[in-house]
Amino acid sequence: MTKRVTSLAAAIERAGLRDGGTVSFHHHLRNGDGVLNMVMDALEAAGLRALRLAPSSLFPVHAPLSRHIANGTVSAIETAFLAGPVGQSVMAAGLAEPLRLTTHGGRAAAIRDGHLRIDAAFIAAPAADEVGNIAGTLGPNACGTLGYPMVDVRHAAHVVAVTDHLVPYPCVPPAIGAEDVDTVVVVDSIGDARGILSGTTRPATDPADRAIAAQAAALIAVSGRLVDGFSFQTGAGAISLAAAGAVAEAMAARDVTGSFAAGGITGAHVGMLEARLFRALLDVQCFDLEAAASHARNPCHRAISAAAYAAPGPRGAVVDRLDAVILGAAEIDRDFNVNVTLGTDRRLIGGSGGHADTAAGAGLAIVTTRLVARGFAKFVDRVACITTPGATIDAVVSEAGIAINPARPELAERARAAGLPLVGIDDLIARAGAAATVVSEATRASDTTVALSLARTGEILDRIRAPRHAPRGAPSSTSA
Amino acid sequence: MTKRVTSLAAAIERAGLRDGGTVSFHHHLRNGDGVLNMVMDALEAAGLRALRLAPSSLFPVHAPLSRHIANGTVSAIETAFLAGPVGQSVMAAGLAEPLRLTTHGGRAAAIRDGHLRIDAAFIAAPAADEVGNIAGTLGPNACGTLGYPMVDVRHAAHVVAVTDHLVPYPCVPPAIGAEDVDTVVVVDSIGDARGILSGTTRPATDPADRAIAAQAAALIAVSGRLVDGFSFQTGAGAISLAAAGAVAEAMAARDVTGSFAAGGITGAHVGMLEARLFRALLDVQCFDLEAAASHARNPCHRAISAAAYAAPGPRGAVVDRLDAVILGAAEIDRDFNVNVTLGTDRRLIGGSGGHADTAAGAGLAIVTTRLVARGFAKFVDRVACITTPGATIDAVVSEAGIAINPARPELAERARAAGLPLVGIDDLIARAGAAATVVSEATRASDTTVALSLARTGEILDRIRAPRHAPRGAPSSTSA
Repeated sequence: MTKRVTSLAAAIERAGLRDGGTVSFHHHLRNGDGVLNMVMDALEAAGLRALRLAPSSLFPVHAPLSRHIANGTVSAIETAFLAGPVGQSVMAAGLAEPLRLTTHGGRAAAIRDGHLRIDAAFIAAPAADEVGNIAGTLGPNACGTLGYPMVDVRHAAHVVAVTDHLVPYPCVPPAIGAEDVDTVVVVDSIGDARGILSGTTRPATDPADRAIAAQAAALIAVSGRLVDGFSFQTGAGAISLAAAGAVAEAMAARDVTGSFAAGGITGAHVGMLEARLFRALLDVQCFDLEAAASHARNPCHRAISAAAYAAPGPRGAVVDRLDAVILGAAEIDRDFNVNVTLGTDRRLIGGSGGHADTAAGAGLAIVTTRLVARGFAKFVDRVACITTPGATIDAVVSEAGIAINPARPELAERARAAGLPLVGIDDLIARAGAAATVVSEATRASDTTVALSLARTGEILDRIRAPRHAPRGAPSSTSA
Repeated sequence: MTKRVTSLAAAIERAGLRDGGTVSFHHHLRNGDGVLNMVMDALEAAGLRALRLAPSSLFPVHAPLSRHIANGTVSAIETAFLAGPVGQSVMAAGLAEPLRLTTHGGRAAAIRDGHLRIDAAFIAAPAADEVGNIAGTLGPNACGTLGYPMVDVRHAAHVVAVTDHLVPYPCVPPAIGAEDVDTVVVVDSIGDARGILSGTTRPATDPADRAIAAQAAALIAVSGRLVDGFSFQTGAGAISLAAAGAVAEAMAARDVTGSFAAGGITGAHVGMLEARLFRALLDVQCFDLEAAASHARNPCHRAISAAAYAAPGPRGAVVDRLDAVILGAAEIDRDFNVNVTLGTDRRLIGGSGGHADTAAGAGLAIVTTRLVARGFAKFVDRVACITTPGATIDAVVSEAGIAINPARPELAERARAAGLPLVGIDDLIARAGAAATVVSEATRASDTTVALSLARTGEILDRIRAPRHAPRGAPSSTSA
């Protein structure tokens, strides 16, 4: 039995893919990923048609996919996040079937439960041996944990490891074992791990953003949850990282030892682990190279699969154990529904990722946002697209005060007692509207549904319609 | 969602077990296991009937199971190893269906491929948190790796963690994740980890045994395989451990750096890892507490699942990568078939475990054995039961010389050129027969098949018939 083949073409042939088959990818290299594009080119060259694409996320680097959509190589996409030119192609020209925008946990559950059947999973492998033991912690493109493909490989009919760093057997420590891999192919480069930094930043320096971060941390501090065993998740945005810093200070001041921080992990989280503010990091994906290095050396910095992280179901997930999560928003509305999917100019700007999963799971889901961004109001009467249902959001923190979901009177009482600046969501909507300087012409929608915003449990939360006029910068080949 | 229940009875009710259901257990605590007995008592108390039992192995400590068989709680057993009184019960009285004696890899493959469907897997958990993250490296009964249940939990309909050491969430590092566990129950004691030493010993001190070990090592040394990257497995018997020592000396003398040692791991293997004779240990089960401690501290001492270890199939297994394995035998015959299942007194003495898996996978499968044990000839014309097919055995080493399988002329040539004492298998059979002092009366078989010896791929290798007269010491309740 030889798993090693000499080309992607040979790997594709070995996988037995047919027209209409489903192929999956992971996004641990984020905007530095080189594997999806090269595999898609090889699938196109093999003459495959009407493929269904199930990447955990898509980034601007995946722009060539627009061509594969246009020429019929790809007819359907299901992903938890999509940013970049491919989104514009989808909005402008559509796919044969509406784009399915799910969540990280929803994707894992769909694979686990057989609703999303993968014919071939292609794993960008920072290191692998010749039988497919795969490590994320070795090689020139070491990216740390490999939480997303850990789910795919358990269920895919065929698994291909694509690596640029072949190591002697046995590859130790493996994130994915050879027992879950069929084929190994060595390529010149799987991408550029420096791209995993894309989308992440340093803590906010702007005073208004820092004030929002401080208020978010203050809300956590008065919530009753900031006690020993506290668990926390935050993203890698500027306000989130500033909030993480403020939470860390509050933990240290109270001598609180948290249980874990989870999610996409950054150097900021590593600092909190090493300061013993948390006993463990539960890491589905490293958001920077500091996190990747920490995972490689620290046994308390654990890899978790996307299923362990966020999949809904009776066995539970890490997100269900979160005391608090700090989330961003492109828009938030009167019902606390959050949109991180559709821009005011009706472009796809990402999608849930773990947003809706953590909001649903966490005891305290806090959105932080400015009233206005680039002239557009971020507090609105009705979000352009529901990514995360308002029922799962507990509070929103802005520079004009904190609005608590009316369904959380106890939280409001605690915040009020602590003297935090509470305000009604209607007030924030009014103030944001007054401060806005731009109302987009492009927000008018046509009747054509081009994408579905799916809840983590699979139901349709919202239908995304194509813009009546294609936004600037969309590809010229807009014929559906 | 609360996974924690207060009793085994509640766990059984939650698992939804019905008459005829299949329950599984693992044997990492070996003869110190307390979980199987307490769960079987609870299943009996719940009034369940005709259960199918799928433990990875059974030991003398599981003697109470004879009662569950006799009273109809259990009607079928499939396991890779069975030693102790339960075997006598099965031989004397039979089960409703013949006992299925498989291999470690065969069991894993049967579970993976859906041939063995587990309704409820009960996991003896040395440590667990309240949602079922399970660690083998913590707690009073820390036993190291948990390679066997790693397979069960992936496929079982319901998974119950039974622990005597509840730790705060998150249990780190987990061998089994909460995403694979439904129910958690805390008991006073899961057994006694000191029992994992059962069946293992220290290296042989008897001069004849040491000479056999030295010859086995010499055969490996002349085989052409003892070069950088060499991989090795040996059991925990006295001759095996002495052979491991001799192989280590040969590696050091030649400055060979091996790739890995695999299998059940002992302190002897740990010593070889720490002497940098191997780059990694691939450990499906710790055979002593030194191994358990090493796994807890050394990232190159890796846990592997039983599927990764030994399951047959196109994705391969660790055993397929073995250069050499040293195995024991109760009997070996003219065709090099090995019996480690049935004693000369027609008692069940164990079964394959990983014997047939490693013989099939390894480049060089060497059996070591004395000519005679306790008066009985160990070289025979026809083994009483085929556990491991002779086609997968390369050589047998005895105190009277080395017999090479005639299907391996190149190996014989190398051994001859090196001056090793070669001898024909017929000669060894003749010499053993001459030296034997006992011929068992009890070896006569009845017409009743009570057990099947299964190949790792599932075919029936041999049928084991009940003795015509029950052996001494068998239970008196022999009515079927």
